[in-house]
Amino acid sequence: MKIRLFVTGGTFDKEYNELQGTLFFKDTHLPEMLRLGRCRLDLEIRTLMMIDSLDMTESDRMLIAENCRTASEDRIVITHGTDTMVETAAYLAGRLSGKTVVLTGAMIPYKFGSSDGLFNLGSSLAFVQTLPPGVYVSMNGKCFPWNAVKKDKRAGEFIEI
Amino acid sequence: MKIRLFVTGGTFDKEYNELQGTLFFKDTHLPEMLRLGRCRLDLEIRTLMMIDSLDMTESDRMLIAENCRTASEDRIVITHGTDTMVETAAYLAGRLSGKTVVLTGAMIPYKFGSSDGLFNLGSSLAFVQTLPPGVYVSMNGKCFPWNAVKKDKRAGEFIEI
Amino acid sequence: MKIRLFVTGGTFDKEYNELQGTLFFKDTHLPEMLRLGRCRLDLEIRTLMMIDSLDMTESDRMLIAENCRTASEDRIVITHGTDTMVETAAYLAGRLSGKTVVLTGAMIPYKFGSSDGLFNLGSSLAFVQTLPPGVYVSMNGKCFPWNAVKKDKRAGEFIEI
Amino acid sequence: MKIRLFVTGGTFDKEYNELQGTLFFKDTHLPEMLRLGRCRLDLEIRTLMMIDSLDMTESDRMLIAENCRTASEDRIVITHGTDTMVETAAYLAGRLSGKTVVLTGAMIPYKFGSSDGLFNLGSSLAFVQTLPPGVYVSMNGKCFPWNAVKKDKRAGEFIEI
Repeated sequence: MKIRLFVTGGTFDKEYNELQGTLFFKDTHLPEMLRLGRCRLDLEIRTLMMIDSLDMTESDRMLIAENCRTASEDRIVITHGTDTMVETAAYLAGRLSGKTVVLTGAMIPYKFGSSDGLFNLGSSLAFVQTLPPGVYVSMNGKCFPWNAVKKDKRAGEFIEI
Repeated sequence: MKIRLFVTGGTFDKEYNELQGTLFFKDTHLPEMLRLGRCRLDLEIRTLMMIDSLDMTESDRMLIAENCRTASEDRIVITHGTDTMVETAAYLAGRLSGKTVVLTGAMIPYKFGSSDGLFNLGSSLAFVQTLPPGVYVSMNGKCFPWNAVKKDKRAGEFIEI
Repeated sequence: MKIRLFVTGGTFDKEYNELQGTLFFKDTHLPEMLRLGRCRLDLEIRTLMMIDSLDMTESDRMLIAENCRTASEDRIVITHGTDTMVETAAYLAGRLSGKTVVLTGAMIPYKFGSSDGLFNLGSSLAFVQTLPPGVYVSMNGKCFPWNAVKKDKRAGEFIEI
Repeated sequence: MKIRLFVTGGTFDKEYNELQGTLFFKDTHLPEMLRLGRCRLDLEIRTLMMIDSLDMTESDRMLIAENCRTASEDRIVITHGTDTMVETAAYLAGRLSGKTVVLTGAMIPYKFGSSDGLFNLGSSLAFVQTLPPGVYVSMNGKCFPWNAVKKDKRAGEFIEI
């Protein structure tokens, strides 16, 4: 079973710029995280962009959708900022078929000691192997169909609607 | 969906005893790891024992099987040492039915910076939600039916047989 | 030998606010860091403020100076943002005497895995025990008299002038 | 000011061997720790051996003493297992002169998340810059002359005698 992993950035991959005192993107940490988890799945990783999902445009989503469509794999995990993860999931649901696509992210950057990133990566890679075709969001240990989830910004977690 | 989490120890929960310079068990770190992963699943955690799986006896396995049988939940994750995880999985398969039971562990203790524990926890909690009744081993991002897996001790990973 | 530890915030104690996606101050991590370092010195810790040193005013510096002056200890370490650490050191030098005062900070927040905080804490606590009365800045493993140091913002380190 | 850093192993550099489930030595982590601490001192690092100090022989101590004697630097830090750190300090005190030598170690391996290693490294590098010639032990934030210290094995800390 081959799985495709698309990286789009989000809090998952943010880093601290010590010269400016701000958060920014450098390279993705996905390969390092998969090594840490001793993941032995047959994965193909591709970085599509490294942006905060609040900055995502229709153009960016079109790029993600096109890459999902043309990928040879029919099981895809996408790391994404949590703020507009549901929007992107909805966008993809309307344009893909025959593929199991799971979007995941992190509330705390992986580079911070107390990140949920590794846990979510384990979750999403497991869900993508067992769920039937469709678009899903995987956060907080759960998996939601794209049209039955929203981000509760006050609590900082994803809930069923 | 309620999930039961049984802790039996294994490398997952080992700690370094600085006074003796040896590895030992204290309390389980599962609650801490679930908080880190921001897991919002409805989980019931129970520590059954804290031992190295090389020291597990038939008596210990009987205890695990009995607890699985009497648990009200029909979805169960068991943290376990990797050395005899397959043996315990086989033992349980012969004694349980109607429940999805996933065994997982870690090659490096959670307390060590470079642990696969959090990743495996995310994986197993995802698999237990989607797999049909049966006994499984979840390691290295994969999930194996109890009778189709073994630990490759040389490589330090689990493979399909 | 009693040592006083004054906390003023700075990058040392910044945390990631997962709901806003920004950096902020909560409680100081100094006690936790001292426990980690297994520090057995006779220390008295007091949080004076938790601010970014770019936001420090004359009023804040006056508070720091007054607390240093009235402290019963004559050996004092102050955790401080790196951006205006030298300004505060100069301010204190003009107002204190008979005390060994060492300012230190961190380029990366302690809460991030790759922080220099713990190393700098060890350094400054050692320097404060051996240096003669005066005001110093301790960063990058070195110790500088207050009037012979500046922050090289481009390189992100402290150098002798 | 040039400082020499001799590595002899000890708990400082122990790692977890996931295939055997035991602790062992691989390469020293000193360079990585110095990078983390953003240490800008002029340091020369040399690994003399990587052993548990309980296994140290007269022959090993002779090697350490000879290297200290012939080093061009007169400020030296030695990382060492805590169990016989005081013995080695005494051995060196009888054979060296005109050099400031500070021995330090860690109660928990650096590779474990909760290590005192980085703190002790910061301490010892600071002490070696300010103390007069002699042999010292730096642990728990303190610095002890070689003949006024012992390891309290019950409490797991170093105390003055």
